[in-house]
Amino acid sequence: MNFASDNLAGALPEVMDAVARAGKGALAAYGGDELTKRMETRVSEVFERDCAVVLVGTGSAANALALSILSPPFGRIFVHPGAHSQTDECGAPEFFTGGAKLHPVAGEHGKIAPADLDAAIAGVGKDPHWAPPSAMSVTQVTEAGTVYSAAELGSLGEVAKKHKLGFHLDGARFGNALASRNASPAEMSWKAGVDILSFGGTKNGCLALEAVVMFDKAKAEEMAYRRMRGGHLFSKMRFFAAQMEAYLEGDLWLRTARRSNEMAKRLADGLKAIPGAEILHPVDANEIFLKLPRKVVDGLEADGFRFYRWTEGTHPMIRLVASFETTIGEVDALLASARRLSAA
Amino acid sequence: MNFASDNLAGALPEVMDAVARAGKGALAAYGGDELTKRMETRVSEVFERDCAVVLVGTGSAANALALSILSPPFGRIFVHPGAHSQTDECGAPEFFTGGAKLHPVAGEHGKIAPADLDAAIAGVGKDPHWAPPSAMSVTQVTEAGTVYSAAELGSLGEVAKKHKLGFHLDGARFGNALASRNASPAEMSWKAGVDILSFGGTKNGCLALEAVVMFDKAKAEEMAYRRMRGGHLFSKMRFFAAQMEAYLEGDLWLRTARRSNEMAKRLADGLKAIPGAEILHPVDANEIFLKLPRKVVDGLEADGFRFYRWTEGTHPMIRLVASFETTIGEVDALLASARRLSAA
Amino acid sequence: MNFASDNLAGALPEVMDAVARAGKGALAAYGGDELTKRMETRVSEVFERDCAVVLVGTGSAANALALSILSPPFGRIFVHPGAHSQTDECGAPEFFTGGAKLHPVAGEHGKIAPADLDAAIAGVGKDPHWAPPSAMSVTQVTEAGTVYSAAELGSLGEVAKKHKLGFHLDGARFGNALASRNASPAEMSWKAGVDILSFGGTKNGCLALEAVVMFDKAKAEEMAYRRMRGGHLFSKMRFFAAQMEAYLEGDLWLRTARRSNEMAKRLADGLKAIPGAEILHPVDANEIFLKLPRKVVDGLEADGFRFYRWTEGTHPMIRLVASFETTIGEVDALLASARRLSAA
Amino acid sequence: MNFASDNLAGALPEVMDAVARAGKGALAAYGGDELTKRMETRVSEVFERDCAVVLVGTGSAANALALSILSPPFGRIFVHPGAHSQTDECGAPEFFTGGAKLHPVAGEHGKIAPADLDAAIAGVGKDPHWAPPSAMSVTQVTEAGTVYSAAELGSLGEVAKKHKLGFHLDGARFGNALASRNASPAEMSWKAGVDILSFGGTKNGCLALEAVVMFDKAKAEEMAYRRMRGGHLFSKMRFFAAQMEAYLEGDLWLRTARRSNEMAKRLADGLKAIPGAEILHPVDANEIFLKLPRKVVDGLEADGFRFYRWTEGTHPMIRLVASFETTIGEVDALLASARRLSAA
Repeated sequence: MNFASDNLAGALPEVMDAVARAGKGALAAYGGDELTKRMETRVSEVFERDCAVVLVGTGSAANALALSILSPPFGRIFVHPGAHSQTDECGAPEFFTGGAKLHPVAGEHGKIAPADLDAAIAGVGKDPHWAPPSAMSVTQVTEAGTVYSAAELGSLGEVAKKHKLGFHLDGARFGNALASRNASPAEMSWKAGVDILSFGGTKNGCLALEAVVMFDKAKAEEMAYRRMRGGHLFSKMRFFAAQMEAYLEGDLWLRTARRSNEMAKRLADGLKAIPGAEILHPVDANEIFLKLPRKVVDGLEADGFRFYRWTEGTHPMIRLVASFETTIGEVDALLASARRLSAA
Repeated sequence: MNFASDNLAGALPEVMDAVARAGKGALAAYGGDELTKRMETRVSEVFERDCAVVLVGTGSAANALALSILSPPFGRIFVHPGAHSQTDECGAPEFFTGGAKLHPVAGEHGKIAPADLDAAIAGVGKDPHWAPPSAMSVTQVTEAGTVYSAAELGSLGEVAKKHKLGFHLDGARFGNALASRNASPAEMSWKAGVDILSFGGTKNGCLALEAVVMFDKAKAEEMAYRRMRGGHLFSKMRFFAAQMEAYLEGDLWLRTARRSNEMAKRLADGLKAIPGAEILHPVDANEIFLKLPRKVVDGLEADGFRFYRWTEGTHPMIRLVASFETTIGEVDALLASARRLSAA
Repeated sequence: MNFASDNLAGALPEVMDAVARAGKGALAAYGGDELTKRMETRVSEVFERDCAVVLVGTGSAANALALSILSPPFGRIFVHPGAHSQTDECGAPEFFTGGAKLHPVAGEHGKIAPADLDAAIAGVGKDPHWAPPSAMSVTQVTEAGTVYSAAELGSLGEVAKKHKLGFHLDGARFGNALASRNASPAEMSWKAGVDILSFGGTKNGCLALEAVVMFDKAKAEEMAYRRMRGGHLFSKMRFFAAQMEAYLEGDLWLRTARRSNEMAKRLADGLKAIPGAEILHPVDANEIFLKLPRKVVDGLEADGFRFYRWTEGTHPMIRLVASFETTIGEVDALLASARRLSAA
Repeated sequence: MNFASDNLAGALPEVMDAVARAGKGALAAYGGDELTKRMETRVSEVFERDCAVVLVGTGSAANALALSILSPPFGRIFVHPGAHSQTDECGAPEFFTGGAKLHPVAGEHGKIAPADLDAAIAGVGKDPHWAPPSAMSVTQVTEAGTVYSAAELGSLGEVAKKHKLGFHLDGARFGNALASRNASPAEMSWKAGVDILSFGGTKNGCLALEAVVMFDKAKAEEMAYRRMRGGHLFSKMRFFAAQMEAYLEGDLWLRTARRSNEMAKRLADGLKAIPGAEILHPVDANEIFLKLPRKVVDGLEADGFRFYRWTEGTHPMIRLVASFETTIGEVDALLASARRLSAA
């Protein structure tokens, strides 16, 4: 049973059906089709603002393209040391920006504190030996599975504004964040000062779909060129637009995210009761980072549960992720195993 | 009716079905799944050689990644002036290579002549003011709709070898090329000296699928990093591997390409008879470049046929493309219209 | 005797002396010193406009830095096919811009004709497959040794303005151009629409000195960062500022350039009389491109004259360059040899 | 009186004289001249090994060019967090490598401990999400003014070798390091595993001169192209070769460095005795990092001594640097002032 990652899951049936429907007949290429135009309108409605949208196939592409718009090659981008863009994208931001510097700002539970950001920016020398502050990239849901409130994001946005930094939000799990905080897409993005959002679809049930949502439509032209030269302009865009349309239809994405969050909560609540268990970060969304006695961890693996082991020792640290495919049955099976293994 | 481009077509039902089947249940991400491994084996069989394969979503990504392996940033890449990589990728090769120079070598009917390539290479100065020759990129089917024979490719390959250039083949319409020449995949690639092939699927009936096939497996590691930082590593790779598997199954890709080629031939044969028609390049594959009297061109558009008009004048130059969706009925309808308009 | 290039010459005694004088005692580093500030003021006076100046050590650095300010990575820069930036800088413009595309526009005698530039720009597609026009780079003195009049430059400037292109002037031999046309620095630069000038010193008698002159001072900040990360910010800037000060003092640069031009004219006038001689381009400045009978060419080399042979055949094409070190005696010696060899 | 930096000093008379001598007559350009060839031989002798040398004008250029040879664009370069390349080059390494990631490894007194380096490398994930370890760049003299022994460097070199990393040594103050440890150039470079050395001249008395010394001559060709496209190939190379020749002649560089080190030692010895003084790092070379009572610091500034203040508080941290121009008189004047101010 998969608790390893939400990107090991398949795809939502509604999304699969939409793709299948899009497969017939001739349509304009490169996003000139009706489906893509309708999708753009739909995204603007969802965000309560006229915005520019491009669809790409990976979160790294979305993040790197966004940052290449917000930072010059000689710029400095503030990130959490655990940010995907810093640790897991093999230098995609450096590549797309043309060599900008990622500057880590540490913080508890995967979050950057506004005061720490402010201090980090202030600490940068004002002469050309120093790459000048240009942007910040915040991850929501964070890499620790926590979720910034809209107010917390807004405070970061104010620091960014004060120092004239661009504000990128890496929302690979944006739906889970909204579901967690009952915030609207607008509140959790441009109302908090976000300039460009990586709006994730893949982890939450699409095949391969991330949208770069630009709240300043004037950036659309530059993005069009950058997307093309990054090799990210799909000719049969319909197959991506169709995913997005289905994903947004009837708030499918939010319902799906809410369900994953609930599964994670159920799991966390159950695991807390295991002697020796230590939940390491608030379980705000669909991810749990925890320590468990080694015999429990080993036993769960032996029982066929799949998850990441991040550290070893007497109480290895593991990560459990609930996806849209995770069922109550699977959660309860894991809990039952854990209890049995703990008691043994 | 679409004669504008093969990338305005939808997707082959067999490919759509394979994608749908791949959508359920948990599978390892990032290409660690069984489907992807099977696909890699399958591609090696098709090419009669153990090769490394990565799947991406666009031809520009495939081309640019391939060239970034074959050329250092300071290198010089020889291409036909009409090559997609030179004219239609918004600088993707320059971006991915880190600034290599594309050096056009003109030639009739979209082809580079080996002697011209040799002369172009020889004309490059041997001191560091000149970006040194590093690679060549050949398009097959060419941008003029013609197809190099395996022997012609081999002659280019020999020039490349003589000067120690990497040899990239942009096979966005590779299936159409093979169908045209009755050559095997191996004959039309590594046996002719090709180092890396962009093996196209999208134009010939996939949703979004291009494979970068590396005949030197030692390049696979570097490619893995470059793909990742280019934002081209799909997490749910299964959806792309499934396309490829269906595409290759029972030679679907070759059958489809052959049919498109036949439709183009039928169309060309009919159009030749129109007074004032001039077929500009041999119709080797599924594309026709021709001039027709303006009243015919205007009339075809008025009759609802879609195609590109490339020049104007008394006899505009147009391009007609047959896709896997093109039917005999559509071809004959266009021919009937053309005859009627010509006679009017 | 050196007729090969003006960069084989040594340095002007006045420039050498200024460098020697600058060598003592502590001064602020990185251009914070008085000498550098004085030099900046002096350049502004010479150009009759408040401008931003940075000093670098090579013409390629000046050109590439200038273009990196005027073109985004995805842009398209129009140049003459013979431009130094296109043929002799090993991809420096591509490197510094982050991959912009150089687009050659051919023209007689090394010059781009405004109508041809306009047509080239108009021919670029308006969709993101095409790298969009962003800048043009014009060489003055051209690579054919000819000089644009201020009016000719102005016409190019109008085309650039009409299409919103940045206008870079590669003035590696800017002094020779002014001397040739009796134009003022202002007339030959910003009054003709130039945004950034590479203002050459090395070829005309400095040790290693090229100034990037920006007529829009707002570009100075970005340039400061780009210069630093390009490794072009000298710590002991005084040694470069001193060269520029001496170079400008009492119009030394213009007197020197005028003299080189005169030497070239004297040489060209004499060579015209040699039977079989063909001067290939107007000798506007200090360079002569000509064909001479092979026996004369071979003989001149045997007589110890150094110059470039660019083509062979019965009448090889050679280039002769006069530098600030070239004397009347040397010129007349070459002419005497040529006459003797021709008569033999 | 200048204690701010060694790059505020002028130039050594011997070096100035050599430059002046090089200024006359025609010589081959771009390093084809006899002076440059002689200099290359001389450097090889000094390093007791046949090596390839290129001369550039700044330390940032030397470092960035070296790293671009040692790391692919997707690589990871280990550095001390205080390294010039990480903090003071505005992203030059990222620019020249095409986006490699600098990975800081902290350590006391500006040094990286071999075990920490080893652990940092081991901590990098082995899949393509992680930029793979490619090189390390060590600063000698460190940014804390300390000097690695040859044995310490050798231990780092072994870690590099074990993990197949390239080893770059940033020797902006290489002479001071050798003088400090009485090590030979060979012992402190290739014998310790260094692949490429940035061999500094500017801070130690040249005008603008840093050599990139490559102990693997096979790298020379790639470097030639990279230097050219970085805009770092001087046409009148003689003026840089002449500096190097004079710098090496009769061990001028080592005598000069030894003297600066002695001045710093004399200064440090005197300052230790000031009540409240705290020397923060071993004074191995020509730099002193220390805390002094604020009244002393303020007073020294008022007395006309120039130096950097790095932190404030009751005991500001300052840096004092001795250059080749620093005299015993200046040192003793500063000490006298400090004693007077402390006593007041």
